[in-house]
Amino acid sequence: MDCENKKPLESIDMEAPEFKDFAKSMVDYIANYLENIRDRPVLPSVTPGYLRPLIPENAPDKPENWTDVMADIERVIMPGVTHWHSPRFHAYFPTANSYPAIVADMLSGAIACIGFTWIASPACTELEVVMLDWLGKMIGLPEEFLACSGGKAGGVIQGTASEATLVALLGAKAKTIQRVKAEHPDWDDNTIVSKLIAYSSNQAHSSVERAGLLGGVRMRSLKADDNLQLRGETLEEAIKKDLDEGLIPFYAVATLGTTNTCAFDRLDELGPVGNRHNVWIHVDAAYAGSAFICPEYRPLMKGIETADSFNFNPHKWMLVNFDCSAMWLKDPNWVVNAFNVDPLYLKHDQQGSAPDYRHWQIPLGRRFRALKLWFVLRLYGVENLQTHIRRHIGFANQFEESCKKDERFEIFSKVQMGLVCFRLKGANEISEALLKRINGRGKIHLVPSKVNDTYFLRMAVCSRFTRPEDMDISWNEVSEAATEVLKEQKK
Amino acid sequence: MDCENKKPLESIDMEAPEFKDFAKSMVDYIANYLENIRDRPVLPSVTPGYLRPLIPENAPDKPENWTDVMADIERVIMPGVTHWHSPRFHAYFPTANSYPAIVADMLSGAIACIGFTWIASPACTELEVVMLDWLGKMIGLPEEFLACSGGKAGGVIQGTASEATLVALLGAKAKTIQRVKAEHPDWDDNTIVSKLIAYSSNQAHSSVERAGLLGGVRMRSLKADDNLQLRGETLEEAIKKDLDEGLIPFYAVATLGTTNTCAFDRLDELGPVGNRHNVWIHVDAAYAGSAFICPEYRPLMKGIETADSFNFNPHKWMLVNFDCSAMWLKDPNWVVNAFNVDPLYLKHDQQGSAPDYRHWQIPLGRRFRALKLWFVLRLYGVENLQTHIRRHIGFANQFEESCKKDERFEIFSKVQMGLVCFRLKGANEISEALLKRINGRGKIHLVPSKVNDTYFLRMAVCSRFTRPEDMDISWNEVSEAATEVLKEQKK
Repeated sequence: MDCENKKPLESIDMEAPEFKDFAKSMVDYIANYLENIRDRPVLPSVTPGYLRPLIPENAPDKPENWTDVMADIERVIMPGVTHWHSPRFHAYFPTANSYPAIVADMLSGAIACIGFTWIASPACTELEVVMLDWLGKMIGLPEEFLACSGGKAGGVIQGTASEATLVALLGAKAKTIQRVKAEHPDWDDNTIVSKLIAYSSNQAHSSVERAGLLGGVRMRSLKADDNLQLRGETLEEAIKKDLDEGLIPFYAVATLGTTNTCAFDRLDELGPVGNRHNVWIHVDAAYAGSAFICPEYRPLMKGIETADSFNFNPHKWMLVNFDCSAMWLKDPNWVVNAFNVDPLYLKHDQQGSAPDYRHWQIPLGRRFRALKLWFVLRLYGVENLQTHIRRHIGFANQFEESCKKDERFEIFSKVQMGLVCFRLKGANEISEALLKRINGRGKIHLVPSKVNDTYFLRMAVCSRFTRPEDMDISWNEVSEAATEVLKEQKK
Repeated sequence: MDCENKKPLESIDMEAPEFKDFAKSMVDYIANYLENIRDRPVLPSVTPGYLRPLIPENAPDKPENWTDVMADIERVIMPGVTHWHSPRFHAYFPTANSYPAIVADMLSGAIACIGFTWIASPACTELEVVMLDWLGKMIGLPEEFLACSGGKAGGVIQGTASEATLVALLGAKAKTIQRVKAEHPDWDDNTIVSKLIAYSSNQAHSSVERAGLLGGVRMRSLKADDNLQLRGETLEEAIKKDLDEGLIPFYAVATLGTTNTCAFDRLDELGPVGNRHNVWIHVDAAYAGSAFICPEYRPLMKGIETADSFNFNPHKWMLVNFDCSAMWLKDPNWVVNAFNVDPLYLKHDQQGSAPDYRHWQIPLGRRFRALKLWFVLRLYGVENLQTHIRRHIGFANQFEESCKKDERFEIFSKVQMGLVCFRLKGANEISEALLKRINGRGKIHLVPSKVNDTYFLRMAVCSRFTRPEDMDISWNEVSEAATEVLKEQKK
């Protein structure tokens, strides 16, 4: 060793004691932010481009003090934050946020391993395998989806439901190409792909249509019935028509809890149709799937044993921070083998005896996300998570009751889970004016949707801080805005 | 309001004071883990299936204590962790880990917004736009890639380089389909896609080949020259040959810093060839791109102005925790318009005046990742980040010198950045035995690679805790293992 090597290196990193002060100050900030989130305006009033003038044009050459960075959170960031965890936030669907998940992510950031293979950090892969078994059992998934059944099946954490839909589509595509090639050895891949046809309800999420675009296959949007549920006979008719025209049906998405109205496709009908016609059935239960931890909601997933893949987002309604989209596959090999590119620098001695999750997903790298599932399940316990779900559903019913008692309003579709779809009676324009008025007043935040040309407002229960009195505040806000709008209409 | 509503709800969540104790205890754990990471065995000795027997078969019904969860980290998790941030870890390439990034991610977890549109949290989008400008200026990207230039260009944070490669490919595919359709209005999409052909070096990362598989297009692997660089004339020849055969060249990936040996493709030659033939040039500088913050390494990105998209991973070598893959596009509209599915519940009044980043990426949802870039840039400052890069490169040179002084060894390829590719002189089997011995001894961890049938070991400098004496320890470990292997060979 050279003498020179013994000279102490000048430190360029934040030192541990400073980190502790900084991180603990952030812990206090976070607790204060969340416990008082109710008091902030839920929707920011900034306009596009607000942030750039608030900070320098270039990164600093020399390090700044962490206290200056802390101070800038309220000055620069918070004025532009939409507070998704405020009880006043009723837009989209919930995204999760809990103390146990935040702490777990801190640990994940410290270990900061990349779990692309088993050997790259065995704990990262193995905890994920077991957590997906825990979770699968909690929602009553049939054994043939679980790793503990001893077969090839199992679960994986994807980043988002969009990715799960795409991964399942690509697996179905690979499976079908192989089957068709065996029947028609003279057809090349392009010929087969040009004949492939996938299906979803016209109520499916926009990411389903997008998966078709990304996967380079045609996707047929099928008409849901009057209850906004996709029915088996509709799928069967479409498949038969397409078969008659020489197309190859290969993939169908059944949505349990649509984004528009939280409608549930009839999986019990769609599954058998798919199974009969070699069509891969993927179940997208992104939001509503969390409710299946309560046995009383499991009838809504009737037919699950007929599915090939199932997906829901604990990062939506089960208090596990984004990103944690749980997906199970009965036979992951279709996905694994479709995109298996295996260079020497990623090979290891234990290949085959544990999953190498890089083959199960679109990206190569992956964080240690199973930790937050583990922390949340243990620090809430199943019973408290069930209470969380039931409470949100109760809040939706509370809002529905208020709405029903007011004759100016109508409920658009059956209230399911934590979502109420409602509108002012009459022309769409009145409800459009109502939404504009509500968001303009800035006390609560909602987004609209439109089905069969009817415009309505979506009130989603989103926050874990919500209490019955918050729902009353939200209802009163809607009611007052309606009074204003209707008064103006009369002018 | 009903009387009933005023009853206090039974709390199911961890309370704020308990969270503070828990999180602060985790802060102390993290500092202790990282400051003493050098003393842990870098590679775990567990075998597949080790974890399942260590925890219950089911999630608990009732909440556990956080102190029990903390205690299980050492019992359940740490025995199976590969310590990527140990100075003894020389596998793959580095992944980032820094105190400022960990604290930023805590804040991101607390705000927990989903930044799919501007209105969904304006700060999330706007900080990202400005941070990508800061970062682009730091590495000397031409103005035409930056949002601050006032045009349509700009940057985005992707999850991984694999996704950036795929997004660029899909953008190039959409652009080319539109161009070819204008020339051949009678050709349908499938006909065009069947003729598309993409290019990369045979030294490109496995994810590049995988992007071709995922995108459903052919990808031609071109031979790098003796310095393992892809040359302009090689690309030009391939393009001309393919054009002659009626194919449509549309996309080429130039790698700056390959995974095998950190070779740099000749972007200055490839770019003009691509530009001449309507071939989208994507630059994958996943690892080495961080070095461009030091002006002395920018000659390696000569020709950058000819590229259509550029990507590097601050989450590799620039101390921003995974996931933070920075990507710039001269014209994002090809990507935005290719997969633009725009349902009513995601529309907002400000569309068009700020990017809606959901159109720039594969997933729909996205976390507030710009925060960690902001914290790292401010709390290190550009100069300390430059020191970090130069120091790692110096450590590689230190190891190279040790290797060169030992006549049993040879350097496989020119040492670039923080990577040394080396081997024992003679047959591959000897170096294979060496790697097995090194990883078996368990003091340091390396992975191999193979180029043109020659097997070699890759020593990547990975940890921010590395000091010159650590590099001596690593070299001594390699040297001792070699002595053992060569002694056994003689028997």
